[in-house]
Amino acid sequence: MGEPMAGHLLAAGHDLRVYSRTRSRASRLLDAGAVWADAPADAACGADVVISIVGFPEDVEEVHLGRRGTLRADELPSVIIDMTTSRPSLAARIADEARARGVEAVDAPVSGGDVGARNAALSIMVGAEPNVFDRVLPLFELLGQTVVLQGGPGAGQHCKMVNQILVAASMIGAVEGLRYADAAGLDGATVLASVSAGAAGSWTITNLAPRILKGDFAPGFFVEHFVKDLRIAMEEADAMGLDLPGLSLAKQAYERLCEAGHGQAGTHALAVAY
Amino acid sequence: MGEPMAGHLLAAGHDLRVYSRTRSRASRLLDAGAVWADAPADAACGADVVISIVGFPEDVEEVHLGRRGTLRADELPSVIIDMTTSRPSLAARIADEARARGVEAVDAPVSGGDVGARNAALSIMVGAEPNVFDRVLPLFELLGQTVVLQGGPGAGQHCKMVNQILVAASMIGAVEGLRYADAAGLDGATVLASVSAGAAGSWTITNLAPRILKGDFAPGFFVEHFVKDLRIAMEEADAMGLDLPGLSLAKQAYERLCEAGHGQAGTHALAVAY
Repeated sequence: MGEPMAGHLLAAGHDLRVYSRTRSRASRLLDAGAVWADAPADAACGADVVISIVGFPEDVEEVHLGRRGTLRADELPSVIIDMTTSRPSLAARIADEARARGVEAVDAPVSGGDVGARNAALSIMVGAEPNVFDRVLPLFELLGQTVVLQGGPGAGQHCKMVNQILVAASMIGAVEGLRYADAAGLDGATVLASVSAGAAGSWTITNLAPRILKGDFAPGFFVEHFVKDLRIAMEEADAMGLDLPGLSLAKQAYERLCEAGHGQAGTHALAVAY
Repeated sequence: MGEPMAGHLLAAGHDLRVYSRTRSRASRLLDAGAVWADAPADAACGADVVISIVGFPEDVEEVHLGRRGTLRADELPSVIIDMTTSRPSLAARIADEARARGVEAVDAPVSGGDVGARNAALSIMVGAEPNVFDRVLPLFELLGQTVVLQGGPGAGQHCKMVNQILVAASMIGAVEGLRYADAAGLDGATVLASVSAGAAGSWTITNLAPRILKGDFAPGFFVEHFVKDLRIAMEEADAMGLDLPGLSLAKQAYERLCEAGHGQAGTHALAVAY
């Protein structure tokens, strides 16, 4: 998702240095005028704003706190923004470490996927100090349609966890509902015609249930990334002393799906686990 | 819901006989020209079409198969339609008993609630033989916006079970998501602003989550009726050899909510059980 997002910033006239572990993935951005950097620290050197979007919390940590991370730049950046879906507690820790160096930190995970990134239609959930949010809002408005400040550092990540709890529950419902329909001898598409528009309706039912019925499990959003998100949500819920059995059920179901070799399928491949 | 539905039929010029266990609930219909009947058998006597919508499967059985039920009418009706959410297997049994007497039977549960009934905007999920469906479709079109034939007798009920499986999962997600948000120190309404429009979106999130945040648990749809529906869905799933852990979780949660005295609250009162 980073490539189209960076493309929007470039198209708006911003100067851009880019780093990626796989240089070839930056080639279109470099062709369009971005400048290559050999490490996060080099990309961040003296920058007004640094934006990261990577895979896992470990990657986020490496990019910002690592030996060649953004906070080790020869000239520190002014603001670092992480848009990866990652641990709220890591976002808070990065903010602490940044602040100790006079750098502001923002967590801003997104929903909307590849399509939302390409169309600049993402929902961006922001954890930041209000004055920092105001400073970076114009950048977010180049990337997303819905940009909401959720609270201080970490709050964007917490909001994304809520998003994933909702997505997981919808998927469990869709998969169980379609499984029931099939066992009862109903036609799945005909059932969707009855249930989609009312109280049972959801984005999942409208967008993913038809793909489940076709056996089209291309991502969308990877199972292995969703497992990561649900594990983070579960750890955070546990740490807050919450008992969320629906989340627990979804996490286990997705872990089994991943173990069964479907990590690179779309999240709606949960249907094959039933 | 029966009253506004019957009102639409009356307004369209149909002759109507009505029976209700509580006669006062029929008074507006009687004022508008409906004729009172002392029992389902009397209401059904010689009718082209009989429509029932009651509370529980036991009530459905009594209305159609009971001593003074519609199939005991002196002059049998031509078609009986049950719009209660009830057991698929009961719908099939009523259809068998009806057919043995030369009467057609249709199951046609609805979603859309009180508001849908008043506005003739229900989704009507129909189990019927196709020729019978064609005969009664003009009546359904006076009551609903989405009228879909799902299969033979019982298929309408099965489709409604799918609907309820989806609704239950959405509610679990909404309640757990809001619980997480609250524990994480987020503002619920601000979270909804981020998550409602994307992949986490649902009818439940749009319509019921804001009421949960206000602590407004007025029904909507009664917890005690939802428990009935989820029990039916679970029995049917068990009978089909299906393992649906999300449904099972929701059924248990709603049973606990009912036992705790919230049977007359709206389904979104699940939030108080968390």
